[in-house]
Amino acid sequence: MRPSSALAKSLDAADPLAPFRADFALPEGVVYLNGNSLGPLPAAVPGVMDDVVRRQWGERLIRAWNDEDWWSAPLRVGDRIGRLIGAAAGQTAVGESTSVQIFNTLVAAARLRPGRRVLVTEAGNFPTDRYLAASAARLLGLEVVETTADTLAAALDRHAGEVAVVFYPAVDYCTGALWDVAGITDLAHRAGALAMWDLSHAAGAVPVQVDADGVDLAVGCTYKYLSGGPGSPAYVYAAARHQAALDLPLTGWHGHARPFDMADGFEPAPDIARTRIGTPHVLSLLALEAALEPLERAGVAAVRDKSLKLGEFFLGCADSMLTGLGFEVATPRDPLRRGNHFAVRHPEAHAVMAALKARGVIGDVRSSTVLRLCLNGLYVSYTDVHTAVAAMQEVASTGAHRAPDFQVREVVT
Amino acid sequence: MRPSSALAKSLDAADPLAPFRADFALPEGVVYLNGNSLGPLPAAVPGVMDDVVRRQWGERLIRAWNDEDWWSAPLRVGDRIGRLIGAAAGQTAVGESTSVQIFNTLVAAARLRPGRRVLVTEAGNFPTDRYLAASAARLLGLEVVETTADTLAAALDRHAGEVAVVFYPAVDYCTGALWDVAGITDLAHRAGALAMWDLSHAAGAVPVQVDADGVDLAVGCTYKYLSGGPGSPAYVYAAARHQAALDLPLTGWHGHARPFDMADGFEPAPDIARTRIGTPHVLSLLALEAALEPLERAGVAAVRDKSLKLGEFFLGCADSMLTGLGFEVATPRDPLRRGNHFAVRHPEAHAVMAALKARGVIGDVRSSTVLRLCLNGLYVSYTDVHTAVAAMQEVASTGAHRAPDFQVREVVT
Repeated sequence: MRPSSALAKSLDAADPLAPFRADFALPEGVVYLNGNSLGPLPAAVPGVMDDVVRRQWGERLIRAWNDEDWWSAPLRVGDRIGRLIGAAAGQTAVGESTSVQIFNTLVAAARLRPGRRVLVTEAGNFPTDRYLAASAARLLGLEVVETTADTLAAALDRHAGEVAVVFYPAVDYCTGALWDVAGITDLAHRAGALAMWDLSHAAGAVPVQVDADGVDLAVGCTYKYLSGGPGSPAYVYAAARHQAALDLPLTGWHGHARPFDMADGFEPAPDIARTRIGTPHVLSLLALEAALEPLERAGVAAVRDKSLKLGEFFLGCADSMLTGLGFEVATPRDPLRRGNHFAVRHPEAHAVMAALKARGVIGDVRSSTVLRLCLNGLYVSYTDVHTAVAAMQEVASTGAHRAPDFQVREVVT
Repeated sequence: MRPSSALAKSLDAADPLAPFRADFALPEGVVYLNGNSLGPLPAAVPGVMDDVVRRQWGERLIRAWNDEDWWSAPLRVGDRIGRLIGAAAGQTAVGESTSVQIFNTLVAAARLRPGRRVLVTEAGNFPTDRYLAASAARLLGLEVVETTADTLAAALDRHAGEVAVVFYPAVDYCTGALWDVAGITDLAHRAGALAMWDLSHAAGAVPVQVDADGVDLAVGCTYKYLSGGPGSPAYVYAAARHQAALDLPLTGWHGHARPFDMADGFEPAPDIARTRIGTPHVLSLLALEAALEPLERAGVAAVRDKSLKLGEFFLGCADSMLTGLGFEVATPRDPLRRGNHFAVRHPEAHAVMAALKARGVIGDVRSSTVLRLCLNGLYVSYTDVHTAVAAMQEVASTGAHRAPDFQVREVVT
């Protein structure tokens, strides 16, 4: 059946996840395909934030650390995120920025393999991951070796006995390619190395199973598929078997075994609490907590299932409507090899995206020529997908994007 | 004139800062003397947060990074905090937790003095400062030497030519003692070392002048005297003369000279933007921004002036009402030697504080035997001070704190 708006409508009518769109405060007239960068506002969050600000902070004041259990929030929310990535309780904590968690966790990972002098990372890994790997390596006197999934096995052979950590992204931030978490973790382990994953573009998007896959350590961002809000705090997963030996460089007082003893020396908490660093950003953290409920209720598997169907529908629309207009889908078509966003190359990507935004279709651009379009089954409809492709067709075929007012500065995270 | 509630009333009636109390949403029946830990809710914050959540995030979505200038917020808010600590524009940035900023800044400070192998810190410094100094020293192969203000000069002599950084708190988190920022900075400089300050208990409380005092680097917390909200992000000050050489270990992508180039290697921004690390916690950051206005309008000097007068009134009340009840003021009485909170020793401090809280008088406890009572001139009244001391008198003289229900767990930051 040829992709059309009528087909989109019928698919939406039969979509069991369609009611979840009402759990997000999406504005009228917007097709939001940028949930891979900033998830939309969950409808429950404004009320919760108002309570957190006016009642918890305003009325309970310092007492809220006990009464409202702000103190436990990093581990309480951590356990909820843990369930979304296949982690049993007590292995996930929330706090700080993803960049900070990458550094802290990577240094600790390397220290779990003393004497090994190589950190392996992925050549297409998000820049901050690579910058922080370089910084950690410099402080520890290690060498960073960049690989791709194709060259990883050879690199591990070449550096046999030397690799401390393999640090990979589960989903490529730019192309949307999905890496084989279980397979690469296994490769790392065969080489005697630890496997550390950046789940930023995977958690909530694809069914990650950190415990089952034997992952050692992981970090991730919560403002993408978890809709935690702009700059919501990151999370760290540390497999229970590593926690007692985890020697983290960011020895903040919240990670102390007895923080309120105000002891002279740092003694890390015996469990996942040792990954805590400074005082949690409570407003951002509690917005994140309130944001998780719709995804938990729908279930990652169901969201993934619909996202893949949206992807098939998108590819069908693109094949029939965008041929000859300069677009090229750079994301693997194989559903087993892609995450939840599509990378679509176009030589004038910035201008095309600006024109799309003027038409209410919101995605973003990376590497100058890549449009990113995220099809999150939790709130994106088949009609959204058809509308977006129709807008791409209209813009590229009429040259609307060449009007001079579309040379805007792009700043997105 | 003997301290009394009548005198308190007349002092309040003549207090030019009295109207500022209405800028804070303090609950009825509460005497809030814990602003050294968590500042109260500024009245303007709930409306701003509602706008940030519903309109900026909810309606503008990813576009808010440009339209609402979320991207610039860390430096925009940084400059406002800079003005409160005597820093000219372009030297202060906001983001991450205080613990993270301590580590990042301290490593960079040590790298500015290559070849010198000693970090000097203060023996009573807040635990997280000392834990992170130890961690930074370990990564860099340095030694930490703990001093007091009295032993600092001798330690600098003993380690002549070896000290890279002197890292001190401007106000002691426990005793409330105020250190001589200009004098200690000068001592450090004479020894060829850099002076780095933790301003957490000083910014907004006492007139700090980082530029005029020749301070090299500083970090601080914003949820105390700046009332930014629970876990609001920290700030870092780096004197302009050091910025181009500042070699920070947390090379997050927001600190890159051109973050959206997604370049292979980390090239730090040429200015204070290089202190940026990960994506800012926007909700917590914009609450902080909205919180600063009353303090800016009142001016730190006026707030300090009133706080000192509140302190004199408090000492007068304590002298006349608490004698023989087991209380001992541990904070220097000399106004030039104290910050904005008083440390009052009592052998049953936890139970006394719990009984005070049951009477609506909120402070906190440190080191088991120290009651901390913060007299912030921006919103604390003379009547509050008298009410608090009267409650201390009532509790200690009747033994009300010995009732078994006051053995509560204390968790405060």
